[in-house]
Amino acid sequence: MNEPFRAENCSIARTLDVVGEKWTFLVLREAFSGVRRFADMQAITGAPRQVLSARLARLVDEGLLRKVPYREPGQRQRDEYRLTEKGLDLYPLLIALMHWGDRYLADAAGPPMELTHRDCGAPVEQFLRCADGHEVGGPREVTARPGPGALLSA
Amino acid sequence: MNEPFRAENCSIARTLDVVGEKWTFLVLREAFSGVRRFADMQAITGAPRQVLSARLARLVDEGLLRKVPYREPGQRQRDEYRLTEKGLDLYPLLIALMHWGDRYLADAAGPPMELTHRDCGAPVEQFLRCADGHEVGGPREVTARPGPGALLSA
Repeated sequence: MNEPFRAENCSIARTLDVVGEKWTFLVLREAFSGVRRFADMQAITGAPRQVLSARLARLVDEGLLRKVPYREPGQRQRDEYRLTEKGLDLYPLLIALMHWGDRYLADAAGPPMELTHRDCGAPVEQFLRCADGHEVGGPREVTARPGPGALLSA
Repeated sequence: MNEPFRAENCSIARTLDVVGEKWTFLVLREAFSGVRRFADMQAITGAPRQVLSARLARLVDEGLLRKVPYREPGQRQRDEYRLTEKGLDLYPLLIALMHWGDRYLADAAGPPMELTHRDCGAPVEQFLRCADGHEVGGPREVTARPGPGALLSA
């Protein structure tokens, strides 16, 4: 898969710049689990308050979360955090992280969580397929070529 | 998807502990592109020498890369780095990072790289499906439940 194009505009590196930091990703994990409020995120992730605050602000700036005001009786108005479409599109990344961890890093008892199809209850798997409908087994069945945004080396 | 189980043994957090650091992941990206040698990885990623050395050592310790000796004529023996099965199994994670970046962070010209099916040349896409064969559209069609390794809250 060697190709003579440069790495500066790599989509992997750019994605890692946005969501690669551990606390950032754990905040997103909680958002996917339906956790929307600062205090709940802090309690579950164990993130220091200032770290969590900074990560949430970044995720809002990047358009992955949006703030929605709410008010509990007798308290001041606060914001909760909900995934945007851009944030929801990180789901395949979340699944890939989880499945690899389930396979290689789980305790002897097994994975801590199972994802199942809402409609039938069967376990959810991730796979690759080409636009012509063929299942793609892994990296050896994939060819990389420069895309329209490639910066070719001199 | 709220479930009353605890997050300490989360497979996502554990995976991020192993591969979540940016340079680590860029090293893996190069390994998937067929880059095996220290000098080549350094040239392409731009990682500082000591950082690259530490990240490679960690990836070998974790069993994602293995060292294979080689010797260029007239030089001392060196090691190159090849992905193990455990490392190759990170491919879905790599694809997920790349596709999200292609979609949201690419330059106006478009993605820098295209992945195509070796056999037919069509673009490669990533999907979710359940073990019963149904395609799963996204997070709203997935139910999370405690797995065999769940640590239930008191």
